[in-house]
Amino acid sequence: MTGEHDISEEALQLHAQLKGKLTVHSKVPADSKEALSILYTPGVAAPCLKIAADKRLAYTYTGKGNSVAVITDGSAVLGLGNIGPDAAMPVMEGKCLLFSEFAGINAMPLCVDTQDVEEFIRFVQLTGPSFGGINLEDISSPRCFEIERRLRDTMDIPVFHDDQHGTAIIVLAGVINALKLLGKSEKTAEVVINGAGAAGLSIANLLLEYGFENITLCDVQGAVCEGNPSLNSAQAVMAKKTNRNHEQGDLAHILVGKDVFIGVSRGGLVSEEMIAAMADKNIVFAMANPIPEIYPQEAKEAGAAVVGSGRSDFPNQVNNVLVFPGIFRGAIDCHASDISEGMKIVAAKALASVAQQDGLRADYILPDAFDHRVTIAVAASVAAQATKEGIAGHPLTYEEEAVLAEQFLTTKNK
Amino acid sequence: MTGEHDISEEALQLHAQLKGKLTVHSKVPADSKEALSILYTPGVAAPCLKIAADKRLAYTYTGKGNSVAVITDGSAVLGLGNIGPDAAMPVMEGKCLLFSEFAGINAMPLCVDTQDVEEFIRFVQLTGPSFGGINLEDISSPRCFEIERRLRDTMDIPVFHDDQHGTAIIVLAGVINALKLLGKSEKTAEVVINGAGAAGLSIANLLLEYGFENITLCDVQGAVCEGNPSLNSAQAVMAKKTNRNHEQGDLAHILVGKDVFIGVSRGGLVSEEMIAAMADKNIVFAMANPIPEIYPQEAKEAGAAVVGSGRSDFPNQVNNVLVFPGIFRGAIDCHASDISEGMKIVAAKALASVAQQDGLRADYILPDAFDHRVTIAVAASVAAQATKEGIAGHPLTYEEEAVLAEQFLTTKNK
Repeated sequence: MTGEHDISEEALQLHAQLKGKLTVHSKVPADSKEALSILYTPGVAAPCLKIAADKRLAYTYTGKGNSVAVITDGSAVLGLGNIGPDAAMPVMEGKCLLFSEFAGINAMPLCVDTQDVEEFIRFVQLTGPSFGGINLEDISSPRCFEIERRLRDTMDIPVFHDDQHGTAIIVLAGVINALKLLGKSEKTAEVVINGAGAAGLSIANLLLEYGFENITLCDVQGAVCEGNPSLNSAQAVMAKKTNRNHEQGDLAHILVGKDVFIGVSRGGLVSEEMIAAMADKNIVFAMANPIPEIYPQEAKEAGAAVVGSGRSDFPNQVNNVLVFPGIFRGAIDCHASDISEGMKIVAAKALASVAQQDGLRADYILPDAFDHRVTIAVAASVAAQATKEGIAGHPLTYEEEAVLAEQFLTTKNK
Repeated sequence: MTGEHDISEEALQLHAQLKGKLTVHSKVPADSKEALSILYTPGVAAPCLKIAADKRLAYTYTGKGNSVAVITDGSAVLGLGNIGPDAAMPVMEGKCLLFSEFAGINAMPLCVDTQDVEEFIRFVQLTGPSFGGINLEDISSPRCFEIERRLRDTMDIPVFHDDQHGTAIIVLAGVINALKLLGKSEKTAEVVINGAGAAGLSIANLLLEYGFENITLCDVQGAVCEGNPSLNSAQAVMAKKTNRNHEQGDLAHILVGKDVFIGVSRGGLVSEEMIAAMADKNIVFAMANPIPEIYPQEAKEAGAAVVGSGRSDFPNQVNNVLVFPGIFRGAIDCHASDISEGMKIVAAKALASVAQQDGLRADYILPDAFDHRVTIAVAASVAAQATKEGIAGHPLTYEEEAVLAEQFLTTKNK
């Protein structure tokens, strides 16, 4: 693990050198009295009065329409657990810089000094006037479900818990293409999701929404099955919609004969024997980080037909950096009031279609993270879908949003 | 007033063109898998773990030490009144861009969707892990006093209500130099402050702290006098420390024979006759915006020896853009836990001394807003004072902070 040690050292050095990865600037110089009198007092009173008369003009005269808050309570940071809001900041800054680099969005990190659900919800609600969208990040399960639900119900801007939905969308995109490549269908494919936390439950939800009919979740205690008293409330709801054959037992038992393995759990849980026992032409997404449930090479040697992981050093990286920049770009550009299930589905389809344009292969079912087409395709699909669903304050066609997203990507909003 | 109409139109056009005056970027490009693995996962875990073990390392590994939140509830925006948080955003963005342009500080605007004092206080407290300092802005009086006091008492980073203290500091600096130029002393000078809101009360407090002994506040109801039942709680406290002769009556009456007029009230309230009735060699700071209590030319014609206003198109602009960039630069660089009265006094003295270096004249008692020396002198004085008072987590000498501030000003933290 020398390589990982080196990355830690390099990361510490760069972080100490930068002292913060973000910088906030004026878009235009404020270098003369004339400039100040337009950008600040007395000129600034004019846009204030316009917005006071009609709140929607905040999208015209301020940065609201291009700013997203990245908000956490630090309760479930990466795989590090509950390290608290102060220690979560390096991740939130990182997320914000990706918003800028991949979508030209102004994102601001907010690490909130409470883990009380009510206080946290109220805090996020109170930020509403300042942002066009809210990206919830690294909040522990099952608290994250109630937090997101209540914020979506009460706020008029999109609220999106990326650990749930970003992951679900990229997984769906990858599974769509893997099934297509292998000639299988979502109607008949049997899927096992290992890990019944925020990501696993959200993946299950989106796959069901897309049309998958045979899904079984597993957790450390084995298959998630209706009636099991150890399930939390979110798992209990999911148990009614999955595991139709009421299978019981551990992951090794459940995996036998299945078509798709999706791991959002812990490194090293899956053996070559378990993969070999799956159905013919099976699909393995081993996304635990940094150590996957099974290393890609091992999974292939055990017979897996398509293998993906969370790591950038193997093919088919299942990485939500492919998702959240385009999702938010599209949602905020059309002033969507929510990010609906329909918008998530079209985002996954858009991602899948970008890779399809290049021709699918076993080691190419998802586009590269730096593929310029991704944010544009996702944003355009999402904005068009919000417009179709009637939840866009500023309706946009696919073509209109594609042009807008391209502009933001090119200029990075400078 | 054609000129003002033009500024409004120009401001609306520029704001609509910019759609937000701020931009947030990564300090380094995230354009390769290697860069992502250092700036984001998996490398970012290393600084997270360091901070989890010792919160103070947030100043080493994140932007905490160079970021300030500019927070308002929109209850008293400029002279526009309670226009609410959405409509306050153009002002907050403007303030943030000044933090960047004048001090290289990353400032983020937060317009909070409540005017409940308790909720607002709790909101600000919860932002603590994300920022090195809090600039409260445009909060109505007397609510602003309780809000600031309780936040200063409970937070371990500086909390500073600029409308109160920024104004008080720049006024004190101007009065110090005007008295020096005219050969008068703070011990004997008689001062009238018109306007007993946030700014007026704060000016009175700082002048008392500095050593002024004869101050009388006026409001629309006349002189603020002990025992008057119409005073609010903050005014009642101030009445015990000012107006020693228990003068009563309106502003015209109170001004007779006084040395200094400080107006933080409304345009046009002061006549040439009122100025003519003041003491010989009197000082007039008519800071109402955009229309001053009396126009500078009129005040001069009526016999005022030194005249200042809030406007950039007259000499001696009494503008708190000279104050807050340096105050925060110094306070956050030394990790001050508070901005003390002592730090405010040294800031005023530093400002005064910059103008003194050039030689004081009746039309030059304060430095220009774009004078590069100002932020450095204020920041260095403030950091050295915090260090002297033992409230600096990262002690700095005057010379050390002068070098640091110069670096930030030159690079603007890019």
